[in-house]
Amino acid sequence: MSIPSFIEGYGEVRRFAGAFAAPRDSLRAGARIRAQHPGETKVLPSIRAAILACGLRDGATVSFHHHLRNGDDVLRAVMQEIAALGLRDIRVAASSLFPVHAPLVEHIRSGVVTRIVSSYVTGPVAEAIAAGDLAQPAVLQTHGGRARAIEAGELPIDVAFVAAPAADLHGNLNGVDGPSACGPLGYPMVDARHADRVVAITDGLSAHPLTAIDIAQDCVDIVVPVDSIGDTSKIVSGTTRVTEDPVGLAIAATAARVIDASGLLVDGFSFQTGAGGISLAVAQDVAAIMRDKGVVGGFAAGGVHQGIVAMFRQGLFRTLFDVQCFDLAAVASYREDRGHVAMSASLYANPASKGALVNHLDCMVLGAAEVDLAFNVNVTAVGGGRIIGGSGGHADTAAGAKLALVTTRLSAGGSPKIVEAVECVTTPGETIDAVVTEAGVAVNPRRGDLRDRLAAAGLPLVDIARLRDLAARETGGAPARAGTGEGRIVAVVEYRDGTVIDVVRERRNR
Amino acid sequence: MSIPSFIEGYGEVRRFAGAFAAPRDSLRAGARIRAQHPGETKVLPSIRAAILACGLRDGATVSFHHHLRNGDDVLRAVMQEIAALGLRDIRVAASSLFPVHAPLVEHIRSGVVTRIVSSYVTGPVAEAIAAGDLAQPAVLQTHGGRARAIEAGELPIDVAFVAAPAADLHGNLNGVDGPSACGPLGYPMVDARHADRVVAITDGLSAHPLTAIDIAQDCVDIVVPVDSIGDTSKIVSGTTRVTEDPVGLAIAATAARVIDASGLLVDGFSFQTGAGGISLAVAQDVAAIMRDKGVVGGFAAGGVHQGIVAMFRQGLFRTLFDVQCFDLAAVASYREDRGHVAMSASLYANPASKGALVNHLDCMVLGAAEVDLAFNVNVTAVGGGRIIGGSGGHADTAAGAKLALVTTRLSAGGSPKIVEAVECVTTPGETIDAVVTEAGVAVNPRRGDLRDRLAAAGLPLVDIARLRDLAARETGGAPARAGTGEGRIVAVVEYRDGTVIDVVRERRNR
Repeated sequence: MSIPSFIEGYGEVRRFAGAFAAPRDSLRAGARIRAQHPGETKVLPSIRAAILACGLRDGATVSFHHHLRNGDDVLRAVMQEIAALGLRDIRVAASSLFPVHAPLVEHIRSGVVTRIVSSYVTGPVAEAIAAGDLAQPAVLQTHGGRARAIEAGELPIDVAFVAAPAADLHGNLNGVDGPSACGPLGYPMVDARHADRVVAITDGLSAHPLTAIDIAQDCVDIVVPVDSIGDTSKIVSGTTRVTEDPVGLAIAATAARVIDASGLLVDGFSFQTGAGGISLAVAQDVAAIMRDKGVVGGFAAGGVHQGIVAMFRQGLFRTLFDVQCFDLAAVASYREDRGHVAMSASLYANPASKGALVNHLDCMVLGAAEVDLAFNVNVTAVGGGRIIGGSGGHADTAAGAKLALVTTRLSAGGSPKIVEAVECVTTPGETIDAVVTEAGVAVNPRRGDLRDRLAAAGLPLVDIARLRDLAARETGGAPARAGTGEGRIVAVVEYRDGTVIDVVRERRNR
Repeated sequence: MSIPSFIEGYGEVRRFAGAFAAPRDSLRAGARIRAQHPGETKVLPSIRAAILACGLRDGATVSFHHHLRNGDDVLRAVMQEIAALGLRDIRVAASSLFPVHAPLVEHIRSGVVTRIVSSYVTGPVAEAIAAGDLAQPAVLQTHGGRARAIEAGELPIDVAFVAAPAADLHGNLNGVDGPSACGPLGYPMVDARHADRVVAITDGLSAHPLTAIDIAQDCVDIVVPVDSIGDTSKIVSGTTRVTEDPVGLAIAATAARVIDASGLLVDGFSFQTGAGGISLAVAQDVAAIMRDKGVVGGFAAGGVHQGIVAMFRQGLFRTLFDVQCFDLAAVASYREDRGHVAMSASLYANPASKGALVNHLDCMVLGAAEVDLAFNVNVTAVGGGRIIGGSGGHADTAAGAKLALVTTRLSAGGSPKIVEAVECVTTPGETIDAVVTEAGVAVNPRRGDLRDRLAAAGLPLVDIARLRDLAARETGGAPARAGTGEGRIVAVVEYRDGTVIDVVRERRNR
């Protein structure tokens, strides 16, 4: 990687200097407040009316959240009105962007949108960024880094648009009532506390005060009722079934053995895992071990999905901390289960916080597109600049968890996944403890204690370089790596503390 | 009243200029954050260790809350350690002070404490303030004004001490678990978001994450386990039984008729009332009318007590917004009842908020020590400077509610309660809609619409001056009012917007 000290359209670069190198002391920013008087209404008839009431101008920053994931229709609807009003040079700060957000591409090409800040981008918007269509480099943050940037005042938001499954006339919002219930509104909780103006867009307007509140009325300026905020059947946008593939199941079984052997799987155990097929299989295997041992965990966190809900309902965890539901089973649990509590993105993962929950994780099970010899993980860009997502909570949970475990096959689609050096560093190797593959477990040399425990438990340990070799052999030799080149920087990859850990360069120049 | 433009020990005076004269736009302050890293503990062994860890210095401001009311032992314990450490010139920002806080008097006399900011003060501390023992004038705020001052950065807190019935090792706090459960921690929610350092003191330390959270771990620096934070049997420190006195019952019945006749008692009705004997009787009578009419209210708010809980559980309100429980029945309801939700003091009553709940109140039933011909209400000081409490939420709810109703007898203890001019203005008359006495109902001339409705309903209307005359006759002529004099100002009475609405002058000089 080659990171310049100044990036046009981004500014001065503070380079990544270690996972915990940031200063301890920081300031949380305030907010502009416009007081509401008795008898005034917050309800406006249209998104356009709300935009006008906010006085949105060229160059402004608008924010969105991704709780409706690939079913979200609010970003499209808002940006359509912004474009129709003739606004230009807008910065879109969206917690994540999915294929459903394809209409954003036309606004990028027309100059309505010139800047994007997000923690995860896939689909046509990712392609447009990679192709260099965006006027300024996209900024790819982590979920915790986004919360930090907003709270630190580094990412000031002019108007936060909140897709709200339920809203009342006072402006209280939740994600559990209404036809588009999506679970706790953990991401916009942060935006709503700091944005200059907060607009809730809802298809579940209640004439009476809500009986459960994710975002309270003192953080909301305007409420706009609409016919639909999206399609909740598309909240489930990734794999959410336990893998049936034998290799995946073997990796999962090994990962569960690693967790068992780590010494962490005792009363009070805390756990997080994604919703991918292997991760779900790990959860299933860990659940079996917990039941066998009679271990009751402290908490599970997430990104909550049916796998975690099942463990919680079996009494394997006392509390679920939930920033976002990955499926409708999780939504139902949030609505019904005491102990299934909402957390903001800041509470979840902000590294500048008095208490990020990730810091209390015993074990996090992570995926990877690539892992390298320094245990760096890439989930951001492959194939010479193709953007495939980004950190989300990857780098946050890796930094916080006592045992950050990457599960991955040696190769996929003919490409090796264990490589000499990742194309793009999403998560620094110093925060990854072990990599579990079908060919064995590579432990980070920083974790001699863990290596000893795993060896004693008879786990198949292997050097990371050996895995690299096996992956290369499996794929007929690593393909020639696309040179990092000196093409224009199309995306700046920020570590959770706001330093720059890598960049993505324009694809067509490679 | 005579309010100078500068008050020694207080500073420049911004005079009260009307209930909604404050600027609409304001800034919410930020906070200093000291990040916690993985593996670090928040638990310290003693209050002294916590004070030392916070680096508390002479002249600092420490804050407390009053959810344990007259059973609180945390303020005493903390101030004892502060005094023992030799600290001086401390400002105590306590949301309320009760007789139990008598040990504060010695710290006032010794110069450990030189400033007090509070919203309600009774008992020996009130006497010490009135006697001029405090080096600088006390500042008496409203509950909403306190939240506003903290959020505006006007009342910066060095260390907030939170009496926490339950705390976990991460620093999450709630008021529903543990031996000293007191209900939602609405007041310290504000302190905890803005204080430089936040120390939770708990007699309910949980080894595992809490399953319900009032204040989250990202707002707490230190957790100190202690044997006891107080005596919850003394949370109930006032009257909490329906009055049995015929005059009180008659006033309550009239008040309920006023509410009925106001036109507000329809589906969605919102209501708040205190826990005094007459207020509870009003609640009972209003409940009967609601049942008769088949009206289901939107929300009730408070200061929640068994009277309101009973109405909620009868299905008369859809949601309870609770800043503080007044009795253990309310605590149990908060623990058990969906729809009984916590609110911060800011959400409750902050006038600089995007959405103070008081603004949505249809009807608030208030008490009074004195009411005058301009409908000004005094609940702060009587008898020539005897401090009897202060606003609490009085001025906040009066300003917000569509119908702010004062219920009072004509006289008490040989003194008239309807007077020419109140000794001290707590709540400005422009925000009071009617006064209900045993001799009839006086409607504020600003509310001709209300007067017409009440007249049409056959309610006994009477001029406020007539009530003053009747009160004077009943007490054998009003006693000579103590002159306001030019004695030293011992307390500054701030309206909710931070302007000065009145002062209390030294008693012994009168």
